[in-house]
Amino acid sequence: MSKVCVAVDVMGGDEEPQVVLDGIDAALAADAELTVFAVGPEELVVPFAQKRDRVEPLVAPDTIEMGDDPIKAVMSKRKSSIVVACRAVKKGTVQGFFSAGATGAVTAAATAYVTPFKYEDEGEQRPIRPCITTALPNRTGGLTVFCDLGANPDVEPGDMLRFAQMGAAYARVVCDIKNPRIGLLSNGTEDSKGSHFTKECFKLMKERLTGFAGNCEGSDLVSGSYDVVVADGFAGNVALKATEGAAKLILQELKSTLLSSTKGKIAGLLVKSELSAIKERLSGDAKGGAILLGLKGVVLIGHGATSVEAVKNGTLATADAVRAGLIQHVIDSVDSIVK
Amino acid sequence: MSKVCVAVDVMGGDEEPQVVLDGIDAALAADAELTVFAVGPEELVVPFAQKRDRVEPLVAPDTIEMGDDPIKAVMSKRKSSIVVACRAVKKGTVQGFFSAGATGAVTAAATAYVTPFKYEDEGEQRPIRPCITTALPNRTGGLTVFCDLGANPDVEPGDMLRFAQMGAAYARVVCDIKNPRIGLLSNGTEDSKGSHFTKECFKLMKERLTGFAGNCEGSDLVSGSYDVVVADGFAGNVALKATEGAAKLILQELKSTLLSSTKGKIAGLLVKSELSAIKERLSGDAKGGAILLGLKGVVLIGHGATSVEAVKNGTLATADAVRAGLIQHVIDSVDSIVK
Repeated sequence: MSKVCVAVDVMGGDEEPQVVLDGIDAALAADAELTVFAVGPEELVVPFAQKRDRVEPLVAPDTIEMGDDPIKAVMSKRKSSIVVACRAVKKGTVQGFFSAGATGAVTAAATAYVTPFKYEDEGEQRPIRPCITTALPNRTGGLTVFCDLGANPDVEPGDMLRFAQMGAAYARVVCDIKNPRIGLLSNGTEDSKGSHFTKECFKLMKERLTGFAGNCEGSDLVSGSYDVVVADGFAGNVALKATEGAAKLILQELKSTLLSSTKGKIAGLLVKSELSAIKERLSGDAKGGAILLGLKGVVLIGHGATSVEAVKNGTLATADAVRAGLIQHVIDSVDSIVK
Repeated sequence: MSKVCVAVDVMGGDEEPQVVLDGIDAALAADAELTVFAVGPEELVVPFAQKRDRVEPLVAPDTIEMGDDPIKAVMSKRKSSIVVACRAVKKGTVQGFFSAGATGAVTAAATAYVTPFKYEDEGEQRPIRPCITTALPNRTGGLTVFCDLGANPDVEPGDMLRFAQMGAAYARVVCDIKNPRIGLLSNGTEDSKGSHFTKECFKLMKERLTGFAGNCEGSDLVSGSYDVVVADGFAGNVALKATEGAAKLILQELKSTLLSSTKGKIAGLLVKSELSAIKERLSGDAKGGAILLGLKGVVLIGHGATSVEAVKNGTLATADAVRAGLIQHVIDSVDSIVK
């Protein structure tokens, strides 16, 4: 394995910074070629780095809170851990960045400071819209790549084509799927289904997208019939949250069923570890978090509750994406990208 | 209970007609004031009606298959059970219609033959877009009304307002929720979230919708934080299918976990009946199926796999909706409706 250097947001997530610091330690223990830049307030990151060989401090006195308006916070808090880390990616000080912080703020900061690639459209060059991408466990035991999870509620068919091309690159490089079958999220699988907007996307994808497998539906996020499911950030967010909501409902029902009777309690004890394995598998952290595609750097956002394990996995996944050359694969996959 | 007369589509569903006939018998046994018009081929419905007091035959030689193009089939198969039944609703021969058949075909036939109410818009009268509505079990043990499930992929903000008003009428009358809290399906709960389209809907609903509780997200289909969730037919279908897909994934994982070890098998045996109760509760048939709102008659569509129980519940729910005066409540709830 090659040496990789990754920034981790010490102030990110819904837990104490100590959870993130412990997560960094766990990642360092698991990957001997990894160096971490711990980004956060001086009093936290300097002593932490002093005691460790492969940790550098990156001082950022400000913090963007979960409730802050993302764009305003990114513009006004230039010394926040998120902004400082994104600038470090841009400068090349680090090769990737992991934060368990607010998705909106990380997306806004990464777009502003890591900056997206440009694509060419009728002679003009425009920035690619970064698209939030994740990998979900599916019913066949594999992974389904899903994007956009919510960065872009209003897009053009051309944006959707680029999301699909970037999602396919992620499927190939990170999930080891050689020839990903790409589905367009719609209200039915027939070619004739869709809104005016997705029908335009369908036409464009049929023409230009390698691996296009037609329309798919909400259940295909986890059916395993498609390797990549592409949607605009509105429908994508709705589908992902609906999936999560249903999972919560069922696990809660199951828990209350098991606790409501003696034989249920016995059954629960018998399969306790198996049930937590299911919960773990469905937590949406199959590949360490959600990744922002379209940027000139690897930026990962932790998904769900912050834990030592989640920070470890997110940090390692960031390093893996750097080592796999994900950015170069994205460049090679988007046919309109300016190289 | 008052006498009610309901048509049931003998050819609807993915099972043999006998399953529907058995379902009709079960409904008749459960409701002594119910009369059923069995709609289907002569050789099936005539002998069935002859042997029963409260069954009338309604002969329809044609059948619309699940795979038929809905609009074409409805236009060409005028003697199909779906079309014949919808015309009977319109004529007043029956007061409601239940079909376990194809959603698209029933929606198309009901729109063409039962016909929607009209609403007034800047002096002009236009037909209301019928909206497919269902009630989902939620995490607080209650029901959440959800519409549109897929009839209208492209709509105007005014259509969304009417969907919300009709969904609220359904929540009040069928689900016994006095003052329903109505959420607009979006990509986040903050007021600022949404696509261009849902932002326009938000503005209109804030102005004119009683009970409007702001934006909600995909997980709120089952969170219990809202009594009615309203969406266009594209996002609505995506959210519903994603919910169903996640439920299937988890129940499948659970089954394979339980079957993979001896103690798992024992645990499974202990809670077998409880697990089927969960599956039953989540089957989406909380109120007998999905209802088409906006029409001059009660039309219900069975959701999911056809079974004797499902046909019984759907038929009884159709009768209940008639008795509860649902249509009149819809008229009273849509402020622009032409009375």
